[in-house]
Amino acid sequence: MRAIVPPMAAGYLALDDDIAALATPPGAGALAVVRTAGPSSIERLAALFSRPDILRGTPGYAAAFGRLVGPDGAAIDEVIAVVFRAPASYTGQDGVDIMCHGGQATVDGLLAALDAGGFRRALPGEFSFRAFYNGKMDLTRAEAVADLVAARTAAARTDALARLSGGLSREVADIRKELIRLAAACALRLDYGEDEAPEDLSEELPAMRLARASCEGLAASYAVGRLLRDGATIALAGRTNAGKSSLFNRLLKEERAIVSPVPGTTRDYLEAELDLGGLPIRLVDTAGVRQSQDPVEAEGVRRSLLVAGGADAIIYVVDATQGLVAEDAEFLDANPGSVRAWNKVDDAMAMPVPSGWIGVSAATGSGESELVAVIRQVLIGGHEREPAAGVAPGVRIGSQRHRDALIRAAAAIADAEAAIESGEPVDVVAIDIAEALEALGEITGETTSEDILESLFCNFCVGK
Amino acid sequence: MRAIVPPMAAGYLALDDDIAALATPPGAGALAVVRTAGPSSIERLAALFSRPDILRGTPGYAAAFGRLVGPDGAAIDEVIAVVFRAPASYTGQDGVDIMCHGGQATVDGLLAALDAGGFRRALPGEFSFRAFYNGKMDLTRAEAVADLVAARTAAARTDALARLSGGLSREVADIRKELIRLAAACALRLDYGEDEAPEDLSEELPAMRLARASCEGLAASYAVGRLLRDGATIALAGRTNAGKSSLFNRLLKEERAIVSPVPGTTRDYLEAELDLGGLPIRLVDTAGVRQSQDPVEAEGVRRSLLVAGGADAIIYVVDATQGLVAEDAEFLDANPGSVRAWNKVDDAMAMPVPSGWIGVSAATGSGESELVAVIRQVLIGGHEREPAAGVAPGVRIGSQRHRDALIRAAAAIADAEAAIESGEPVDVVAIDIAEALEALGEITGETTSEDILESLFCNFCVGK
Repeated sequence: MRAIVPPMAAGYLALDDDIAALATPPGAGALAVVRTAGPSSIERLAALFSRPDILRGTPGYAAAFGRLVGPDGAAIDEVIAVVFRAPASYTGQDGVDIMCHGGQATVDGLLAALDAGGFRRALPGEFSFRAFYNGKMDLTRAEAVADLVAARTAAARTDALARLSGGLSREVADIRKELIRLAAACALRLDYGEDEAPEDLSEELPAMRLARASCEGLAASYAVGRLLRDGATIALAGRTNAGKSSLFNRLLKEERAIVSPVPGTTRDYLEAELDLGGLPIRLVDTAGVRQSQDPVEAEGVRRSLLVAGGADAIIYVVDATQGLVAEDAEFLDANPGSVRAWNKVDDAMAMPVPSGWIGVSAATGSGESELVAVIRQVLIGGHEREPAAGVAPGVRIGSQRHRDALIRAAAAIADAEAAIESGEPVDVVAIDIAEALEALGEITGETTSEDILESLFCNFCVGK
Repeated sequence: MRAIVPPMAAGYLALDDDIAALATPPGAGALAVVRTAGPSSIERLAALFSRPDILRGTPGYAAAFGRLVGPDGAAIDEVIAVVFRAPASYTGQDGVDIMCHGGQATVDGLLAALDAGGFRRALPGEFSFRAFYNGKMDLTRAEAVADLVAARTAAARTDALARLSGGLSREVADIRKELIRLAAACALRLDYGEDEAPEDLSEELPAMRLARASCEGLAASYAVGRLLRDGATIALAGRTNAGKSSLFNRLLKEERAIVSPVPGTTRDYLEAELDLGGLPIRLVDTAGVRQSQDPVEAEGVRRSLLVAGGADAIIYVVDATQGLVAEDAEFLDANPGSVRAWNKVDDAMAMPVPSGWIGVSAATGSGESELVAVIRQVLIGGHEREPAAGVAPGVRIGSQRHRDALIRAAAAIADAEAAIESGEPVDVVAIDIAEALEALGEITGETTSEDILESLFCNFCVGK
């Protein structure tokens, strides 16, 4: 159990409350799951169950079929109650996952019956908070659950799953272990007193640099982790008839379209979401770039430039049979980072591919894989993490919070190194190491303040 | 097991296929459930499970925790596999409900792994079809599952649940029992031969009339059943400043708003969905009815009249402090069925409530319950079913299919009655009774043709 000192605001610390929430997405579906947890959750549910003694007698990891009956005695639904018993449960508490028929009215009726039966509606992330509090998962894993739910591509899912399985926890633990050893080395020298210290701390400098490099490497992995989670916008720009729309459609066809999981989002045909080499990409086809006297067209071009300006990357398309003109040069001067696509390269009339351009053909698909690779490179830049020695390849952090903590840890270690190099007293070094440890502890939640915890869990979805 | 003769089109009869589908709504949520069924489903899933022997050894109605691993050996998610073993399952076959983390990428990855592991994606309603085929539920119950999922109000849910619990099946079975007795009475007389028949069938006429009344009563219940399922549109009409918008907001506030379960629907402020006395109601606030020279306003009025014309009921609002004017009379002449609301009745300047009007006050809410009761009456009309003798009150049919079958059954019974009354031979009566039995059998699925079965199940949602 974690040592969190009350008062933590909101109801998260009301751990004896029996809580309930819809855990599956709202909307029509064959099934819905209402999740419950709390010390009396099984008993409270039994009071609403057509076969109370069967439910009471159901062991953990077993299920009971029955009718859920409202406080007025009217049946609400036939359900399958999957029972979990402490500590072998997600939260570490007793709890029941109620599998009911899908549909708004059934879920509403069931939750209303649970309200009447003494359950409280769960706060966002409250199930995960209890899991964290009861030591079932550290913070990186709790956060990974949220990332997993939000993952839009297979690569993003794999990334989150690596953290959920403890990949990040283990890496952080390894760095902490090394820092604890260094802290002990400091303490040893402090115990001896300055004069009798066996030798100075210089011999620890390589270990410190390695620990710092691990922190920095993990911090840098955020560029990719963030991209995997939040995705990026790529704008297709170019003159009218350069073949932007054909390229747009080609990318849509060859790469995997993402069906947006967010209800209510509408997209016009100029925009699509793609899984581009594992990254969730919003691809926007902009209006053609050209000088125009027509105010409507000029407005379209103005918006295109705005979209291009706000994009994480631009693919600038030129018709290889036409070659470069002044308007192209003007755009590329203004947007020098654009990925340059020399389109219609398979055409008999195509001019040769200039240096720095990628020859593509929207019609045949040639050059597409190179284009995707270059876009990926532009988005990820030099941030793709090189696995450090002894570190599992590919584990990445998933949040700005992790990154901030790692940068603080790295800075503290750098301070410790500088202190050793300039011959400062051992207690100065010890303070720096302690600071680094404190920062790393925030990642897994061992030294995380209540404020951070609360803002973290309340951003989870309900039912989580 | 039902006697369905192949070939039934599509794959529904491929009962040995192991099938899988997402059973919870798409979108982001803490959990999702992927449902599987089929004779080898547990074994196939074990091959994808991190703890295959644990899964194989899990009894029915029990759960196993593990990682689902793709064919490439990469973990896809940590899941809880709830095992069901034939015949104690929804489908009557072995099957596993896989509770995984919510989110598009996880569900996609999991389904792709199941594809690779030999599962086939389930057809719409295929799980329910198997349940029906294996005698786990008759057609009325299978259809009730779909109605339950679609239910938007508590009343609609209760209605569907009554059918799911077998309420309709039992009523139909009771009528069938009586008809089988009548068929036996006919057979008895046919066996004896015309001369030696003990007595004519006139003594059975009262029983026949009762059976026919039961069929007719059930058929009439469709008006309410349909309303509960599909809802109705009510338009608020009246002159500008009659207080339509205030009444709209009052109804929104007092009655329960329905959050539309359909993703992607957008509504402007002029329209809302309400639970009005148990009926799911789309309430539309129309533009004011008045003569106008302004073309834009005239267009608004024209659309209002169109909406009002297409609505199932109209609430016509008049400002009680202004009284009736020519435009009101004109509208009411054109729409004589309108429910008449005498608004601002609590105002000191209000004129007395004329006969046929309901005095209401959008400001105080007075008269609202009467208004709702009258609207309900208008929508349901004389269709609210009077429970017949010996019939559970409130059980209603849920579909046009049921209604058609009941009307055919009632007509066949009426034919039998007429045949007896006009002294026709017993075999004519026997044919009519057999026809009535056949029609009733279609409701529960005992005599339902493949075509009907297929069109019925393929309208279910996938995962059902």
